[in-house]
Amino acid sequence: MKKIAKTENVAPVVLKDNIAEGKTVIMARSNHLCGIGCRLTTKINVNIGTSSASIHKEKEVEKARVAEAYGADTITDLSMGGDITGIRKQIQSNTSVPLTTVPIYQCVAEHSLNNLTAGDLLAQIEEQVKEGISSIVLHFITPQLLQQLKTSNRVFAMVSKGGSFTSLYMIKNNTTNPYLEHFDEILQILKEKDVVLSLGNTLRSGCVHDTPDEIQKQEIELNAALAKRANDSCVQVIIEGMGGHIAPALITKHVRYQKQIANRPLFVSGPLPTDIAIGYDHIAASIGAAMASGAGADYLCMITPAEHLCLPDVEHIKEGLIAFKIAAHIGDSIKYSPSDSDKQLAIHRSQLDWGQQLSYAIEPQRPRQLCPKDGKCTMCGKYCAVKTMKNYLEQT
Amino acid sequence: MKKIAKTENVAPVVLKDNIAEGKTVIMARSNHLCGIGCRLTTKINVNIGTSSASIHKEKEVEKARVAEAYGADTITDLSMGGDITGIRKQIQSNTSVPLTTVPIYQCVAEHSLNNLTAGDLLAQIEEQVKEGISSIVLHFITPQLLQQLKTSNRVFAMVSKGGSFTSLYMIKNNTTNPYLEHFDEILQILKEKDVVLSLGNTLRSGCVHDTPDEIQKQEIELNAALAKRANDSCVQVIIEGMGGHIAPALITKHVRYQKQIANRPLFVSGPLPTDIAIGYDHIAASIGAAMASGAGADYLCMITPAEHLCLPDVEHIKEGLIAFKIAAHIGDSIKYSPSDSDKQLAIHRSQLDWGQQLSYAIEPQRPRQLCPKDGKCTMCGKYCAVKTMKNYLEQT
Repeated sequence: MKKIAKTENVAPVVLKDNIAEGKTVIMARSNHLCGIGCRLTTKINVNIGTSSASIHKEKEVEKARVAEAYGADTITDLSMGGDITGIRKQIQSNTSVPLTTVPIYQCVAEHSLNNLTAGDLLAQIEEQVKEGISSIVLHFITPQLLQQLKTSNRVFAMVSKGGSFTSLYMIKNNTTNPYLEHFDEILQILKEKDVVLSLGNTLRSGCVHDTPDEIQKQEIELNAALAKRANDSCVQVIIEGMGGHIAPALITKHVRYQKQIANRPLFVSGPLPTDIAIGYDHIAASIGAAMASGAGADYLCMITPAEHLCLPDVEHIKEGLIAFKIAAHIGDSIKYSPSDSDKQLAIHRSQLDWGQQLSYAIEPQRPRQLCPKDGKCTMCGKYCAVKTMKNYLEQT
Repeated sequence: MKKIAKTENVAPVVLKDNIAEGKTVIMARSNHLCGIGCRLTTKINVNIGTSSASIHKEKEVEKARVAEAYGADTITDLSMGGDITGIRKQIQSNTSVPLTTVPIYQCVAEHSLNNLTAGDLLAQIEEQVKEGISSIVLHFITPQLLQQLKTSNRVFAMVSKGGSFTSLYMIKNNTTNPYLEHFDEILQILKEKDVVLSLGNTLRSGCVHDTPDEIQKQEIELNAALAKRANDSCVQVIIEGMGGHIAPALITKHVRYQKQIANRPLFVSGPLPTDIAIGYDHIAASIGAAMASGAGADYLCMITPAEHLCLPDVEHIKEGLIAFKIAAHIGDSIKYSPSDSDKQLAIHRSQLDWGQQLSYAIEPQRPRQLCPKDGKCTMCGKYCAVKTMKNYLEQT
């Protein structure tokens, strides 16, 4: 914890107080700790995992490796195809950053929704916690909220996969939310291994025209109440916010609203401020993510260029993650102030020192390929404004 | 003009009034008109052109073609190497969108700064105007402002190339600004062919730590006064704003400040909200550009991934332009509201109709390559939340 305080430039006592108040969580895997929340830099999560239609264990492990190499703070394994436990173990042995899961995914893949019981869900949570998972996502959708969806005029009723599984379980069994019913038992399981509970966002918008509505607000309020209960039971909590798709003019307002309802680490997926950037959703989402982070979001779920199209490839993970590193950095420049790295890079740039410049780059490989040969930049050639004006000012 | 009013969904009388008041300009090349300013969608300019260190005529023509094909609203030819007039003519015969130049570039390349006279500058402007150029950029830096630069604590004194040429001309000849001296003659030349005058931004910041300072404010005020004089002489004007590099927390504030000083079409380069995204400056700048456009900037100068590194390739132009199309669209969603294209794409997406979805995409080629084969998306495979929840809501 002292290490986090030092890296993040926060007084240890402030960090400690924020953790005690639930404003900050420490997500851990063995000795690797990741602080998320108040006064800390914005963190990035990368989703990976097989689907029922694309099962390539090695590819998922490679995605995890690349995600960690390019600076992902956490990884979420969403595998639903193949040997799920085996894939998760492989990912764990090839990475060191905290790992999150959505336990109902494996339950549905292995039991099918028709046979699933609340006991299966609890057993799955317990099993994954024992394995050393750092955080789990559970969706606290209620029958009342589901009922309200029926009369809403949303374009997308629901886009959360974990939320839809939980909903379908409830509908098929004509029952209440299984996690709510067994909340205290779940908290007990999580508390023992200090696993972070991520309160899922079932009712996020699926397009920018579906503006945050009353149903979403009720979910935010429910999650805020559950966060308090979890914290009271010594379980750390992250709240998934109204991410997904949100009109850009509303991002700042809604992030602040959520922070006001619950001053807990806020996780947002994207958000995408437009729907028409398909194929380039990582760029659109990085614009939304910079705005959300700048407004107070603590933790971003990276979006790849393959979003809405197919399971991402390794290259898509890399591409999306770089865009999100930029977004998080810009968000932090708004939350706090422009970094010393920006200043150092600028100073070396003003001295036309390309080599030193790149040591401050978010990702140095691509600029290195484009870098001027022999220090001779082809952009302006001999007509370099920086050089000529520097000469003038130094000579006079 | 009626066509612009219709495409942009503005009443013709409003458009006419805004043009009369100088809030909107119409940049024209033959029959191709581009409206920039109040109540219109955000436009994008693409810079191309040879440098003294990279002279490939065909490549520049290809960049111009690609820029137009991918939706650039205007092109600026900044050539300083090779047969500059020939390159410009080739670009003109291969494109139809309005073309801008910075006449001093060709003067410096062909006369060298040592021999340049104010007469050469005026002759160059006249020559390019006769050729059918749509807009020219002139820099109105003054000896007083140059003097102030000497005592400023900026990391970068000046990063504007056109501004540095104008400054060096003034320093070498120990004279005042040549454009200011001959302003009425220049306005007369521009008026005859209805060429738009773009008031250059010589003193923009070169890094995010160089916050907009008093010197920049003085330039903005000078440009505002010149804009009024030009409008009074029936010359249309665009003002280049404090773009370049600007801390993200200051973007909205400064765009609004500039609009308040002069309610004229505002052109911003980028802006880059961080310096450490080198190699990916198109992504960083698209985040800044979305914020600037959302705050009121009317016209964006696209930044490529090669910025600060080398003259861009054709692929860099394409990559940067797509990012800026996304940024401008998001900016317009803030200025106005999310578009009908967003809604239409979302509706088709909710129906899992990939083909129709892509007809609303900002750039359909990449998503088409990633698109689900036989309509089967590999992202969630058989566990598609959209599909299952849709079924539930329709059945009950």
